[in-house]
Amino acid sequence: MDNFIFRLPTKIVFGKDEFYKLGEEAKKIGRKALIVTGKRFAKESGLLEKAEEMLKKNSIDYVVFSEVEPNPESETVDKGSRIARENGVDFVIGLGGGSVIDASKGIATVAVTGKPIWDYCERPPKEKVPQNTLPILAVITVAATGSEADSGAVITNTKTREKRGFFGIANFPRVSIIDPVLTISIPQKQTVDGVVDIFVHIFESYLSSKANTPVSDRVAEGLMREAIRQGQIVFKDLKNIVARESLSWISTLALSGFPSAGRSGPFAVHRLEHPISGIYPTKISHGRGLAILLPSFLYHTKEMHAERLKLFGKEIFSTDSPSKTIERIVHWMKNMNTFNSLKEYGVKKEDLKKFAEMAIADDGGQGVVTAREPLERETILKIYETAYDYKDLFRKV
Amino acid sequence: MDNFIFRLPTKIVFGKDEFYKLGEEAKKIGRKALIVTGKRFAKESGLLEKAEEMLKKNSIDYVVFSEVEPNPESETVDKGSRIARENGVDFVIGLGGGSVIDASKGIATVAVTGKPIWDYCERPPKEKVPQNTLPILAVITVAATGSEADSGAVITNTKTREKRGFFGIANFPRVSIIDPVLTISIPQKQTVDGVVDIFVHIFESYLSSKANTPVSDRVAEGLMREAIRQGQIVFKDLKNIVARESLSWISTLALSGFPSAGRSGPFAVHRLEHPISGIYPTKISHGRGLAILLPSFLYHTKEMHAERLKLFGKEIFSTDSPSKTIERIVHWMKNMNTFNSLKEYGVKKEDLKKFAEMAIADDGGQGVVTAREPLERETILKIYETAYDYKDLFRKV
Repeated sequence: MDNFIFRLPTKIVFGKDEFYKLGEEAKKIGRKALIVTGKRFAKESGLLEKAEEMLKKNSIDYVVFSEVEPNPESETVDKGSRIARENGVDFVIGLGGGSVIDASKGIATVAVTGKPIWDYCERPPKEKVPQNTLPILAVITVAATGSEADSGAVITNTKTREKRGFFGIANFPRVSIIDPVLTISIPQKQTVDGVVDIFVHIFESYLSSKANTPVSDRVAEGLMREAIRQGQIVFKDLKNIVARESLSWISTLALSGFPSAGRSGPFAVHRLEHPISGIYPTKISHGRGLAILLPSFLYHTKEMHAERLKLFGKEIFSTDSPSKTIERIVHWMKNMNTFNSLKEYGVKKEDLKKFAEMAIADDGGQGVVTAREPLERETILKIYETAYDYKDLFRKV
Repeated sequence: MDNFIFRLPTKIVFGKDEFYKLGEEAKKIGRKALIVTGKRFAKESGLLEKAEEMLKKNSIDYVVFSEVEPNPESETVDKGSRIARENGVDFVIGLGGGSVIDASKGIATVAVTGKPIWDYCERPPKEKVPQNTLPILAVITVAATGSEADSGAVITNTKTREKRGFFGIANFPRVSIIDPVLTISIPQKQTVDGVVDIFVHIFESYLSSKANTPVSDRVAEGLMREAIRQGQIVFKDLKNIVARESLSWISTLALSGFPSAGRSGPFAVHRLEHPISGIYPTKISHGRGLAILLPSFLYHTKEMHAERLKLFGKEIFSTDSPSKTIERIVHWMKNMNTFNSLKEYGVKKEDLKKFAEMAIADDGGQGVVTAREPLERETILKIYETAYDYKDLFRKV
């Protein structure tokens, strides 16, 4: 095992109808909130109104900021922060999916420091997240990003379309309310995008580290086994509450550090995906982007991941063939309608080179994207090119 | 899943030689420490001296309290608290095994409140653990109790020999240093007692809850599989660092809430064990007491646990027979020399009834010990009687 520091200072309030504890939890945190939401879901689902009622009942003042787009942008975060400052709020309530929680993290920092959020996203960062950001109460409405229990957030630069993570211990929400009932109305496509996101979070670190971590391997395998199983169940039965709550909990654990304890592996598929949903934010969600890339990534990195794919295949699919393991993963994705190509989603072929350069820059600009072994520019391009249309690859899987 | 609140506010510093971060971490917490240790190990191993050096280098003042016995007693905790108060310390460093960390938790509370520790252990508690206890820096030297990352502690009443848990969010150590290298010098017998303790922590909640928790089931199975495997490895090779670090990490996770998320099952075997090591503290360690009881407990509760034993057997031992699953567990324990009887350890037969009454009182005095189904007095006595000498039971396993 690699040495590590494990921190999870978030109080997690998990379970059916725990949403209705929002007022009670908010009262323990502050007196005036900025409620951050996306443009439609919180309003149309009625959740925003219910949240407002609970705050009123608990005599908590609030301002609503409902402008967060999928793949939240730097200008949106900066604008939300100005509103937070102008209104003198003392905490942030993020009510929505991963984009909303990530934006809330950005707002919680910038509201205090007044620096543009992109300063925290530069490589290397121009600014560090301070300790005294505004506390965050997260109410997560999807099972996907794990932003409800981690110290990171991903922001897209409005001008350059770069998509970058920023990190800091203060990014952990003070409290996260995870109510699986809220996820039941998420449509099928967005639900399975979330399932793939969860799976890839765990799978990437499982593949990419060379540390000997039998305990984390067993934990990761257990979580991935259920992500695979519950994903198939929820695909066919969106209202299945056991599947919904299982996926909500796996999502929360995925990036908590728990299934990756003792490994410090890089997240190559995520890094390769960010330029795609960065440049095509309305066409391709982050989860869909991951789903499109994963089969190609596994295909082109089969050799370097052979031992890990064998182990995974043996535990999950009763095969010790790396190729068959990859095929079984693709088969699972096909069963959930998530095996797609960049072309199907309207990506222009001439953008592939740009994706590669952006991913390399995000990695620190050393000409590679870090994985179990560094991915050279040539391999990176091959991964994008294969994912562009997949041709006959995996046709019979 | 049952609804739950998950909290793990402890900063966990994990890995080989992380012990040497003690000074650095202590400096972030306070200026004058009470160092709590057992009577011999910390001194004889040289760890205490090294800890003192690190504190001196960081200009941290300290007082040493080296009087904690295995199964820490109420009078010891009260005495340590007086010393903490008299010396005006502002934090507690627990350097030792579970007993030392549990005693440190008691001292951290009583040093602030001045109330006897037993007030917190009554059923129901006479006093609640307040928020403002002294912060604790735990340096755990064994893999067993999980006290390094939980909100509980177990204290033995010096006079009545009752052994009781007390709980509170402030019991979480501020920082826990978990350095698996420190566990290498633990002798074989104490090592496997720890392995059984870890296993039972996870197994009890796995067996005892009726909630439908596929994710926690997979996590628990993964952790138990490695506890079984790494236990066998370390039994034969005490210096095996992968086994040692794996067991340290499983120990930490076992009671952290991760493998039991969404289940709120009782800990019957623990409750049945406490009177034994409470009355025979020098003869029987907590882990050994659990090991002695577990086969008998499983034997007498096979019907109520049939479904769970099937699931566990299938995942871990490739059998779906509850009886064979129990036999395989006993076989594993025999392989580590932990299948014993109360008689072998000098327990008097006339004490069995007293054990039963004490366990029932600890449970709240309703005439039962809570398990998946309540254990009646008659069943409880049978469990103790079988464990008294085991006769021919499991002889051929």
